[in-house]
Amino acid sequence: MNNEKMNVKERIAALRKAMREAGVAVYIVPGNDPHASEYMAAHWCEMQWLSGFNGESGTVVVTQDRALLWTDSRYYLQAGIELKGSGIELMRESDIDCPKITDWICDYVQRNNVQCTKVGVNPEMFSVNDFADLEAKLKSQGLSVKSIDLIKPLWTEGRPAIPQDKLYPYSADFAGESVESKLARIRKILESRVKSQESREYAMIISALDEIAWLFNIRGNDVEYNPVVIAYAVLEADKCTMFVDSNKIDTVAQNYLDFNNIDVQPYEAVFDYIAGLRGTIMYDGARVNEALYEAIPEGCRKVNEKSPILVDKAKKNAIELEGERIAMRQDAVALTRFFKWLEEEAFPESRVKNQEPRVTEWDLMEKLHEFRMMGENFVEESFGTIAGYLGNGAIVHYAATKDNCAEVKPEGMLLLDSGGQYLDGTTDITRTVWLGGTIPQQAKLDYTYVLKGHIALARVRFPRGTRGNQLDALAKQFMWEAGITFGHGTGHGVGHFLGCHEGPQNVRTDNNPTALEVGHIISDEPGIYRTGQWGIRTENLITVIPAPQTKATTTEDEWLQFETLTLCFYDTSLIEMSLMTQDEIAWINAYHARVYKEVSPLLGEEEKKYLAHKCRPIGD
Amino acid sequence: MNNEKMNVKERIAALRKAMREAGVAVYIVPGNDPHASEYMAAHWCEMQWLSGFNGESGTVVVTQDRALLWTDSRYYLQAGIELKGSGIELMRESDIDCPKITDWICDYVQRNNVQCTKVGVNPEMFSVNDFADLEAKLKSQGLSVKSIDLIKPLWTEGRPAIPQDKLYPYSADFAGESVESKLARIRKILESRVKSQESREYAMIISALDEIAWLFNIRGNDVEYNPVVIAYAVLEADKCTMFVDSNKIDTVAQNYLDFNNIDVQPYEAVFDYIAGLRGTIMYDGARVNEALYEAIPEGCRKVNEKSPILVDKAKKNAIELEGERIAMRQDAVALTRFFKWLEEEAFPESRVKNQEPRVTEWDLMEKLHEFRMMGENFVEESFGTIAGYLGNGAIVHYAATKDNCAEVKPEGMLLLDSGGQYLDGTTDITRTVWLGGTIPQQAKLDYTYVLKGHIALARVRFPRGTRGNQLDALAKQFMWEAGITFGHGTGHGVGHFLGCHEGPQNVRTDNNPTALEVGHIISDEPGIYRTGQWGIRTENLITVIPAPQTKATTTEDEWLQFETLTLCFYDTSLIEMSLMTQDEIAWINAYHARVYKEVSPLLGEEEKKYLAHKCRPIGD
Repeated sequence: MNNEKMNVKERIAALRKAMREAGVAVYIVPGNDPHASEYMAAHWCEMQWLSGFNGESGTVVVTQDRALLWTDSRYYLQAGIELKGSGIELMRESDIDCPKITDWICDYVQRNNVQCTKVGVNPEMFSVNDFADLEAKLKSQGLSVKSIDLIKPLWTEGRPAIPQDKLYPYSADFAGESVESKLARIRKILESRVKSQESREYAMIISALDEIAWLFNIRGNDVEYNPVVIAYAVLEADKCTMFVDSNKIDTVAQNYLDFNNIDVQPYEAVFDYIAGLRGTIMYDGARVNEALYEAIPEGCRKVNEKSPILVDKAKKNAIELEGERIAMRQDAVALTRFFKWLEEEAFPESRVKNQEPRVTEWDLMEKLHEFRMMGENFVEESFGTIAGYLGNGAIVHYAATKDNCAEVKPEGMLLLDSGGQYLDGTTDITRTVWLGGTIPQQAKLDYTYVLKGHIALARVRFPRGTRGNQLDALAKQFMWEAGITFGHGTGHGVGHFLGCHEGPQNVRTDNNPTALEVGHIISDEPGIYRTGQWGIRTENLITVIPAPQTKATTTEDEWLQFETLTLCFYDTSLIEMSLMTQDEIAWINAYHARVYKEVSPLLGEEEKKYLAHKCRPIGD
Repeated sequence: MNNEKMNVKERIAALRKAMREAGVAVYIVPGNDPHASEYMAAHWCEMQWLSGFNGESGTVVVTQDRALLWTDSRYYLQAGIELKGSGIELMRESDIDCPKITDWICDYVQRNNVQCTKVGVNPEMFSVNDFADLEAKLKSQGLSVKSIDLIKPLWTEGRPAIPQDKLYPYSADFAGESVESKLARIRKILESRVKSQESREYAMIISALDEIAWLFNIRGNDVEYNPVVIAYAVLEADKCTMFVDSNKIDTVAQNYLDFNNIDVQPYEAVFDYIAGLRGTIMYDGARVNEALYEAIPEGCRKVNEKSPILVDKAKKNAIELEGERIAMRQDAVALTRFFKWLEEEAFPESRVKNQEPRVTEWDLMEKLHEFRMMGENFVEESFGTIAGYLGNGAIVHYAATKDNCAEVKPEGMLLLDSGGQYLDGTTDITRTVWLGGTIPQQAKLDYTYVLKGHIALARVRFPRGTRGNQLDALAKQFMWEAGITFGHGTGHGVGHFLGCHEGPQNVRTDNNPTALEVGHIISDEPGIYRTGQWGIRTENLITVIPAPQTKATTTEDEWLQFETLTLCFYDTSLIEMSLMTQDEIAWINAYHARVYKEVSPLLGEEEKKYLAHKCRPIGD
């Protein structure tokens, strides 16, 4: 059988045959990898391979007579096109009346009087917690989950290999802490979790790629946008082991790992290794996959707790923060040059007379990338740039492609969300600018509601223990007054030369129990989106720092505040000044003065003039 | 044995003997009743009886050689005095280093190598969920929980009876909905929860007193401050049964219950009744006690879900809200008269010359009660008035008694938190006023931060689905900027002629998942407390109403806002006008105009003049 030439219908038919042989009535293929990654290597795109749908998020459910794909509203259009002729039904999961996957399965089994009560999944593609949730929900309807990988035997040809890029040591000059020190600290936390047990033998299973990169001070190129290495790790009291393909390790890397007493074993050996562990086994069930969990031998005590690496990694040390500040200056230079180019060169007279090729969103993305690449220690973009012109800016996860993007003209609104991975740190910034023509009053109002919320979050003082969801409304209060809100998070955690999105901290509406801590980095990015008209978002990265006690204080609380890390001017032409308080105007003027002071030394004379103009004081 | 004369040491010795006989190593006596009540009948004050400690909150833990009382910082002083000589150790549970009760027990058993692994509790005094938590925590250390009431056999003499007050029908003219209609609606919800079961037989166990009062449109006088009736209830598809002492029911009540097809059985019969149930048994594990749960026969399907009565009761109907508005006007009249008396009569010339008896906090509480009693349909206070003069105002749960209270002089700050139960509804209001002398600048600042937060919460618009904890920071943002915060909730739910505190809605920092819904009533009461100087709190009740869509809206969201129910002026002499925005000043002026308009028709001429002066516009 030549799998490569199988079409989607044939793939699903082959899966149904395998399901019958394996005795499972339903098979679920989620769009995950074994490492709970945001950006996945092509090797793990089983959902895409099976369905022919190429969106980044979705879950396929197959029975003997039905096949369905759940995906969210970002992908309705794409899925509609790509699923055509496949026999796969599209389930629009953002719609209120769309059944949840588990409810659909229970209902299907009941309705069709299906005798077989097994639902199959590949346990590598489910976190321990998600697997347990699935099991609990199905159990109430008399169904059980069977761990079985039915895709691997089918997807034999044409399957991309696991990336084989080299890993490299990441200097403690950037990381701010040695591996030895990190290991000692994490072990101390783990030991406190096993303290009352008879056996002091313990191990922690680590499968999140950014946790491994942080713990071992290594980086790699295995995944787009995130400088991580595909690996597992097991940390024990007296040794630690990384499971990674040996051809990813050159002599320098091997010496580095030896020096740090990090044993290396093949990637796939992790399962056997876990099967030989004893004592207390710790894992973060939100991130460790079910297959690893199932490998834990009986008799071990299992402790499912939030990863101390996740928690520690989020609190950046002084060196990491200094690196972020350096990266921010590099990023600011690129952005200043980009916006100067956009204003002064992108639309020359000749072009307006239609004698030049047109400028597209894609061109802007490429141009910005070029400017960033000139920056010191720049490695790659931290995510795919969003350049949303006019109504495209209102599509929150808009992604222009070279072949499918809008022409940009020197008029109307442009939303630009981009970021860089520098050896010094990770950046993520959104600016919305007016390219020309008369600004509609509603555009100024929208821009100003967003800006006021952005400032309110940036300048809040709050007692230690406060969670991001308690601060979320501060960024929304002004637009709420006008009856406007937005559907995405106000702020996500950001890693240090790692994931542009990281936990556990964030500023969202949902009940995240994580309190904001000194050293956390989050984005501050409220937005307003008018379908078909414009999208406005203003985003800086901010970090939590201690706030001085005031004389007026009444409590023993420790106080926290934010330091703004990002260094780029706002488009002040879009501000409706009548809505701004004196405090807000003073904040903007102080910020612009700081931007000029920190960025101008890195610029040429003409660029300095441009930046000075952009950073000129506003208000009386 | 004459129990009445046993002292605390003897009571604990007797309990230890009973523990040995019953085979339990540890016995826990919490300060609860079987109905998860805030205000308890004296009959259930087992914790107080056993320990001699008379505070409202605490838990006693007894072993063969130790006896300990956990209580919070409000009661440290009182407990220190009352426990003297009892041999009971005080555990200061508000202190960071105080072990949790379960941790202490596990540690104790391990340390002392106790062979017996049973921890005894009276299951009537634990909710199902709390009992399960206790069991889970102890289980990890090899301990188990034994349900056994060891206090009842010991506390035989001198134990107050369960209150025997009559219950009375509460007219649908006040309740706004007939019992028939409520029962039909709740049954529909319950039926949807059993829909996929083979047997359609179901029952819901109800033990929260306010839920029973609401569901059956009855009220009583069994508990201080809450007009509830001590009873259990079981609701089934074709009948409902109330378990209540028969001498609480007179002919009128009996006819009423008959008319509504509510069967009556003795209070204690609920256990046998539950033991005879079949099918699906529903209960709210946060409120139903463990003893009721244990009575459910094997073979029943048990469904632990948030009570639909709790959820429904919180959403007041139009008649209930109209009643609240009537009660608020009555309350406003009482408060206006009180404050007029306080300003004009409480401190006559002669008194200042020391020829009159002094005025105390207790006198103010009594005077305010007198004014409230003059109000139409007034039944009782909705909680014990807090009259905190000067530094006493900074003690959040301060309760002056006749014998232990401060003298009040016509100078400095007074915090007054009080409320009434009217047949029309429940009120709860706090005002802080300056009685005379020069106002310190910090007092004005504190008052103004509180007022600005109070207004910010009162006037926010927000999308449906927003929880109280998302709005909490709006009330704190101004004091946070000054480095000030407070430790109590910003807002609690309020019942309709029921509990002054009710769930599930509130505005607090903690992660309450309940979204605010139309008809919810909450308090809006930020505060600032300066130990030894003053306490400032400003509290209105507000209710959630639909907000009109704005033209500028970008979403399909439904929008909500608050209507302020409370009608009483603020002390404008305490406002630092330089901190106030034009919007805030306009809000106060509009509110004061409304207060005058709604309250003045109920006042005499002199009172009108007084109120008009208090409600005069501020600002330019």
